[in-house]
Amino acid sequence: MPYRSPLSELRFHLDHVAGLSQVAATPRFAEATPDTVGAVLSEAARLCDEVLAPLNRSGDLHPAKLENGVVRTSPGFAEGYRAIAEGGWVGLSADSRWGGAGLPLTVATAVNDMMSGACLALQLNPLLTQGQIEALSRHGSPDLQTFYLPKLTSGDWSGIMALTEPQAGSDVGALTTRAEPDGNGAFRITGEKIFISWADNDFTENVSHAVLARLPGAAPGTKGISLFVVPKYLPNGDGTSGEANALRVLKLEHKMGLHGSPTAVLAYEGAKGWLVGPPHGGMACMFTMMNNARLGVGVQGIGIAEAAFQAALDWATTRRQGGAGAIVEHADVRRMLAQMKADLFAARAIALDCAVALDMAQATSDPAWAARAAVLTPIAKAFGTDVGHEVAQAGIQLHGGMGFIEETGAAQYARDVRVTSIYEGTNGIQALDLVGRKLSDGGEAVGRLLDEVEDAAARARADLPDLAGPVWRAAESLREATDWLLDHPADRGAGAAPYLRAFARVLGGRAHLRAAMAGDGARRRLAAFYARRCLPEVPGLLAQARDGAEAVLAVTPADLSS
Amino acid sequence: MPYRSPLSELRFHLDHVAGLSQVAATPRFAEATPDTVGAVLSEAARLCDEVLAPLNRSGDLHPAKLENGVVRTSPGFAEGYRAIAEGGWVGLSADSRWGGAGLPLTVATAVNDMMSGACLALQLNPLLTQGQIEALSRHGSPDLQTFYLPKLTSGDWSGIMALTEPQAGSDVGALTTRAEPDGNGAFRITGEKIFISWADNDFTENVSHAVLARLPGAAPGTKGISLFVVPKYLPNGDGTSGEANALRVLKLEHKMGLHGSPTAVLAYEGAKGWLVGPPHGGMACMFTMMNNARLGVGVQGIGIAEAAFQAALDWATTRRQGGAGAIVEHADVRRMLAQMKADLFAARAIALDCAVALDMAQATSDPAWAARAAVLTPIAKAFGTDVGHEVAQAGIQLHGGMGFIEETGAAQYARDVRVTSIYEGTNGIQALDLVGRKLSDGGEAVGRLLDEVEDAAARARADLPDLAGPVWRAAESLREATDWLLDHPADRGAGAAPYLRAFARVLGGRAHLRAAMAGDGARRRLAAFYARRCLPEVPGLLAQARDGAEAVLAVTPADLSS
Repeated sequence: MPYRSPLSELRFHLDHVAGLSQVAATPRFAEATPDTVGAVLSEAARLCDEVLAPLNRSGDLHPAKLENGVVRTSPGFAEGYRAIAEGGWVGLSADSRWGGAGLPLTVATAVNDMMSGACLALQLNPLLTQGQIEALSRHGSPDLQTFYLPKLTSGDWSGIMALTEPQAGSDVGALTTRAEPDGNGAFRITGEKIFISWADNDFTENVSHAVLARLPGAAPGTKGISLFVVPKYLPNGDGTSGEANALRVLKLEHKMGLHGSPTAVLAYEGAKGWLVGPPHGGMACMFTMMNNARLGVGVQGIGIAEAAFQAALDWATTRRQGGAGAIVEHADVRRMLAQMKADLFAARAIALDCAVALDMAQATSDPAWAARAAVLTPIAKAFGTDVGHEVAQAGIQLHGGMGFIEETGAAQYARDVRVTSIYEGTNGIQALDLVGRKLSDGGEAVGRLLDEVEDAAARARADLPDLAGPVWRAAESLREATDWLLDHPADRGAGAAPYLRAFARVLGGRAHLRAAMAGDGARRRLAAFYARRCLPEVPGLLAQARDGAEAVLAVTPADLSS
Repeated sequence: MPYRSPLSELRFHLDHVAGLSQVAATPRFAEATPDTVGAVLSEAARLCDEVLAPLNRSGDLHPAKLENGVVRTSPGFAEGYRAIAEGGWVGLSADSRWGGAGLPLTVATAVNDMMSGACLALQLNPLLTQGQIEALSRHGSPDLQTFYLPKLTSGDWSGIMALTEPQAGSDVGALTTRAEPDGNGAFRITGEKIFISWADNDFTENVSHAVLARLPGAAPGTKGISLFVVPKYLPNGDGTSGEANALRVLKLEHKMGLHGSPTAVLAYEGAKGWLVGPPHGGMACMFTMMNNARLGVGVQGIGIAEAAFQAALDWATTRRQGGAGAIVEHADVRRMLAQMKADLFAARAIALDCAVALDMAQATSDPAWAARAAVLTPIAKAFGTDVGHEVAQAGIQLHGGMGFIEETGAAQYARDVRVTSIYEGTNGIQALDLVGRKLSDGGEAVGRLLDEVEDAAARARADLPDLAGPVWRAAESLREATDWLLDHPADRGAGAAPYLRAFARVLGGRAHLRAAMAGDGARRRLAAFYARRCLPEVPGLLAQARDGAEAVLAVTPADLSS
């Protein structure tokens, strides 16, 4: 069964759950009229269904290869990429000064959702470029912006991130790549980077590497890191690509999935680069790029969940077992499918809420919106990718023996999505970010968000008591757990992961409530399922979140190996 | 880091948790003295660590192949298999009349655990033979037994199961393979079977297929199914293998994992076979084979959980991030490892409890033991394989980016173990078995088991109040949920999966309690972790189990596709 972009579902989210209308009501995004957005989404859906989805299996069966130092991408990927670039999809939310469409990130998020479901391995390429556009727009010098942004926005060049080193993964402060001034305003970059997604390709004119490195005399740790752009080909004065820069792809990794996306070990051997942002200010630049990418990765999980759910539902409604009808008639199968759909709905709503907050922060400069986005980003990333993993795994399970056979495609979704819980900060790191940095305002931003959830539940109480009550109670217990974590900073790490999950459950509850208020019987029944089958997880999760570090750390490394 | 068989951990389980001593106290198993068992386990561990574990990656990288109709197994597998057969491991719990060692299944289960962790793909082969030995021992005619059992027990022949057909998976009653009497006491089998694990190999003299088929005039559904043995080579009168039987391997599947185990589509083209058990009595024979295999598959999950845990722990104690020490020092990483170990312990204890019940049933002929085994089998299968999946996935996560790279090995564990939640009855089918057939005694067997759990908790209350209290309360709420399900038969299917999970959590609680009573501080700390971090899941699970079918079935197929 071919993937079909969930166009009407996304329209429902934008119109009735995420509230794109408030974004479109700002002068900044006045062009995002319902007609324009509708046309954009329909055109994106056509691209996804007709051009990208047919490439997905090819990427898995014919991984990108390294031949004599040159990356050869999977069959059809070059054509697929050109369709993305020529359609203007890379720069959908980029500034019109650089040739972008200037639409809200919320709309770009819906498009990325569809593209992820169609062909995750290829979609990762423009997603990374979008992160670099964001970073250069915020932190690049006017010269860098004028030179790079039009090429990245058009997709003529792609942009990648080179952060990780063998000894510096989650601990980015441990990196050792060096940057030496060349005396002409540029720098010479030397070091080795690993796990570099789309480090190279054979379909863009040039590849702009965003590289973290240390200037001479830089402080140790994250305070001594600077960001550079390092192009694969050194640009000529006229903007054309000139001679090759001193960097090499040393190898491509053999991965569990996402075979169509080349993941490289890169060597910078005195490669020429240019500073982005102030010296030693690389972390702030990286977080601009990374926060954007974190939301984008959460959306990757959601796109795969959509694709895996479609395939599982198709199987369940056509596969007959047990005499009577299709297996969807069995209660346990129905339960699994309802859970998949309810979780997918919740994860998508959280991601779009996060995108709306980012758009509103940009449109209004109100710091409350930025703080809202900051809280939602780790939840959108971790829950979106967890749901992607869980739905894809449930998809395998629903297919029975066929799920384990590669031809079915269910296994590929599960293998491809697996890395999304890891890259751009593991989901454990997201949880630590949530209970750490994102509570560092004393819980103010979280408190405001929970106020809104409780207000929504209170307003819905008369109409939908069976939904509103559980959502309100879950939000209130999350508030109590938040207060507990605020009072027990040393216990936050041990409770971070279940706290994030409970937070996502509460936000999912609000989203289902909104859907039930605005939607038809189907929305109400799915929301009721969520309230009765998903929200009951919350007390157990919060009991873990508030249990403290003692029982966890009491299990010593020696205990673990005994 | 190479796999190391968990010898002392298994000894602790047998001596202090599962209670092998009560099995050894029966006349039937009097030979299972501590010295004998210790020597057997040590020898098995040597085989696993030195011979089988080194084959694991080879099986993944060099899948079994079909060449001109002949299966070529992965490099080294033939030698590995010979070491298993020559060591007498296939027939470890088989009757000494047929050359078996006659040891308790409990001991064989511990050995299978180690072998699964060492090389799951190869271990599946003798596991299937053990199921066929069991079926023939119980249901075969004296002639069949005399002829087949010595060859299967020695491992000279392997035994496989051919049940599934394209239209008959979980619904075995839909199968259409035909068996026609040949007038000389044998039958001609015609039909196609799919998903046949180890359908063929290039290292045993012969392969005995246990095939489900229909006799002429058989009733429709499961009541018209009979079991046959169909050898790959027709045996000569002297027991040697003669001409090829009329069966063919049509193709091998391209699977997500377990590449070393050939999974075939088989055609029987008038193949000669012999009836096992009475005509139309195939389901009873199948369940003998299958119940044994279900426990065995649960143990496969446990073996993989052990191997994945070892690898993750090694990584976490050597990988440094975040300045200070190894990542095991981070609370969230410690939490994940403690959860992996605590769940592994619980799953292993449940499997060994099930094996003890089967041994006691055999040794005492007390139907209460058989009923106990019947209750524990679906839990051991589903929870063992769920834990295998969860621990292997957590192992990937703990490795960070390295987890997604195939060379690390973490991904292989996750890919290999994935099918164990599906084959021998999906875990959904196990849950339905638990709430259906296994409650068909009015909950008597479950009630007796819960009495024991509560008694154990009550006895431990003085010593370990923080553990005993939560275990007792969880058992009591499980009892209430059981009563509810007994009163609401139409709601059982919709609550089956969370009910099974909650049941496993309660049994895991008893196991940790036993360990804490018998063990050192490390055992007590792990048990405390389990009580504080795993048991809190139970109320949420039981709320789902008791929620009924209404909210689930309210979400219609049309809702799902809207």
